[in-house]
Amino acid sequence: MKRSFIRQILESIDKDTISFAGGLPDEDLFPMKDLQCAAKKAFKDKKNLQYILSNGIKPLREKTAKFYNDEGFETDIDNLLITTGSQQAMYIIANYFAKKDIVVENPSYLGAINILKSNGLNMKGVPLEYDGIDIAKFKKEYKKTKLAYLIPDFQNPKSSFYSKDKRKKVANIVKQNGGYIIEDAPYSQLYFKKGEKSISSLIPNNSLHLGSFSKTLAPSFRLGWIRANKEIIKELTMIKETIDLHTNGISQYILNEYLEDESRYFDHIKVLRKEYEKKMEYFAKCLDKYLPQFIYEKPKGGMFIYGKLPNKDTKKLVYEALENKIVYVPGGEFYIDDGGVEEIRFNYSHSSKEEIKEGLKRLAKIL
Amino acid sequence: MKRSFIRQILESIDKDTISFAGGLPDEDLFPMKDLQCAAKKAFKDKKNLQYILSNGIKPLREKTAKFYNDEGFETDIDNLLITTGSQQAMYIIANYFAKKDIVVENPSYLGAINILKSNGLNMKGVPLEYDGIDIAKFKKEYKKTKLAYLIPDFQNPKSSFYSKDKRKKVANIVKQNGGYIIEDAPYSQLYFKKGEKSISSLIPNNSLHLGSFSKTLAPSFRLGWIRANKEIIKELTMIKETIDLHTNGISQYILNEYLEDESRYFDHIKVLRKEYEKKMEYFAKCLDKYLPQFIYEKPKGGMFIYGKLPNKDTKKLVYEALENKIVYVPGGEFYIDDGGVEEIRFNYSHSSKEEIKEGLKRLAKIL
Repeated sequence: MKRSFIRQILESIDKDTISFAGGLPDEDLFPMKDLQCAAKKAFKDKKNLQYILSNGIKPLREKTAKFYNDEGFETDIDNLLITTGSQQAMYIIANYFAKKDIVVENPSYLGAINILKSNGLNMKGVPLEYDGIDIAKFKKEYKKTKLAYLIPDFQNPKSSFYSKDKRKKVANIVKQNGGYIIEDAPYSQLYFKKGEKSISSLIPNNSLHLGSFSKTLAPSFRLGWIRANKEIIKELTMIKETIDLHTNGISQYILNEYLEDESRYFDHIKVLRKEYEKKMEYFAKCLDKYLPQFIYEKPKGGMFIYGKLPNKDTKKLVYEALENKIVYVPGGEFYIDDGGVEEIRFNYSHSSKEEIKEGLKRLAKIL
Repeated sequence: MKRSFIRQILESIDKDTISFAGGLPDEDLFPMKDLQCAAKKAFKDKKNLQYILSNGIKPLREKTAKFYNDEGFETDIDNLLITTGSQQAMYIIANYFAKKDIVVENPSYLGAINILKSNGLNMKGVPLEYDGIDIAKFKKEYKKTKLAYLIPDFQNPKSSFYSKDKRKKVANIVKQNGGYIIEDAPYSQLYFKKGEKSISSLIPNNSLHLGSFSKTLAPSFRLGWIRANKEIIKELTMIKETIDLHTNGISQYILNEYLEDESRYFDHIKVLRKEYEKKMEYFAKCLDKYLPQFIYEKPKGGMFIYGKLPNKDTKKLVYEALENKIVYVPGGEFYIDDGGVEEIRFNYSHSSKEEIKEGLKRLAKIL
């Protein structure tokens, strides 16, 4: 198994290094007071510290189901499995589909690539454009695999956002051929303008939709979920049970307390959208000023700016960058073939304005 | 994969059913005030809600290392990996040793059996006696597998406790043949009289020692760990990272705050030992009164009384028991062959005195 380059970097960087590498949210935006209050409530009941069932606590599944139903995507608590972050959700699903062939966007999320590899799935890469996957090539491959892993909203790493048309086309291809898409959606709520409906909502029985509270609330809770048809959820729950019995219970109760006031949560997400858009705009401004040779498109949400530095091997460059106390992830890391050599993924959500400016200046100096 | 019968039961029982089935600690003994206080402190720092490294937070690994060093078992923080309970610890290890042959005690912990199966390990069962595994048979099998999974302290389900002599013999067999034992030790601290040293401490480089805070503090935190040599810990950390990135961070910080006062933790465990011994004694007294035909030995610690109901198929009986609002786990569930048909595992840690008495009376009625 290939070690995640990103986490290797996270381990090696020192305090003085400015990091655009990880997919970290801005901790200044964590709703600390409300979470403290929720924690206090959750810790009042000793029963909240006991073992729970493998599929997750009922009130949290009820609230998560309501989020779907409010968007018109009919969902029952038995369509949901609470997981240790959406990373584990992906692992459980990969374990379920072990050794099958699967279509993936190329580039794609490194964590998912590692999971698919470690469960013996055979990946078929299909090029990803800024408005979504290449439909003709997707159709050709999906007919054979009947299984695909997609990140339609503000993709990691490329920040691509599937157009309405491509969403419909993907859904139709799945309808015609049967099988399943795994739709990974950790960034879906972090849009700058209200986006498109999930592909899963168009094919409720042929999709596994992955959500997470790591990007909208706090990663430390490791709380994510899978929405799928009830039969698959039952199978996945058995795998989940084998892996770690159940997801951390007290964190589920804390989150459940926090979500009791739903409007507070939605207001918080509104703040995130506004602040992350500001950061993205500032990052883009600095890129244009200090790295004018960097070719990219502004994302419509999420946490990353992705682009190309012509005639530069960005993986070679990253070691020089580290010496100069600045770090990013080379695009090549996200490809299942040898693509992306000149590409870079920048995270803009975590750094302060000062760090963004100073970091890009440091990078400009070594180019 | 065989569904865990225990968790199936947990899902099906209603409020009026008295359960001796699960391995649940007594929630009346959770140190609620101290944990509330620790939670309050941990929630003060927004950094505690951010992503962390895959191996676990450093101060918690330092404190865990100290527990080992205080017992004379030399351990560094790099010998430790924090996991989502020791269930996940076992899963990670099974994934690492996938498809190998492995010696297991027969009967053994059902969760581990399921994990080993799902990772394609081929189990060789060796009979377990009340003073530990059958040494001659262990030696014969271990020479071939060079890998074993053992629960030397208050085994689940049988409550066996390895004698000092058997510990040494197992360690010597491993020394002579190389390879590894996986020593699962969730109940080790729950002794009624101070026990024997772990087998792992006799063979530090040839052992993976699994610990858990689920039985000594609260299961809801899902915090366990693996202690092994540094090279293996590195390999296991990569697997851990693939499965769920890292163990719940805020729970690690809460636990770390709680453990700042080490003597408070030790005092708490002393209370557990005393209270669980009382419960065990009461359970035994009621067994002798209401189920005199039940053959068992009193355990020296842990959470279970295990024994035999001559001429009864306890798996058939459990459905009748459920109808009469009483439930236990049939011994056969824990065997990798067709053994244990007449055996029963009773959990005594969770129920109140009233429930113990009433439950055993209900059971006596259907015999």
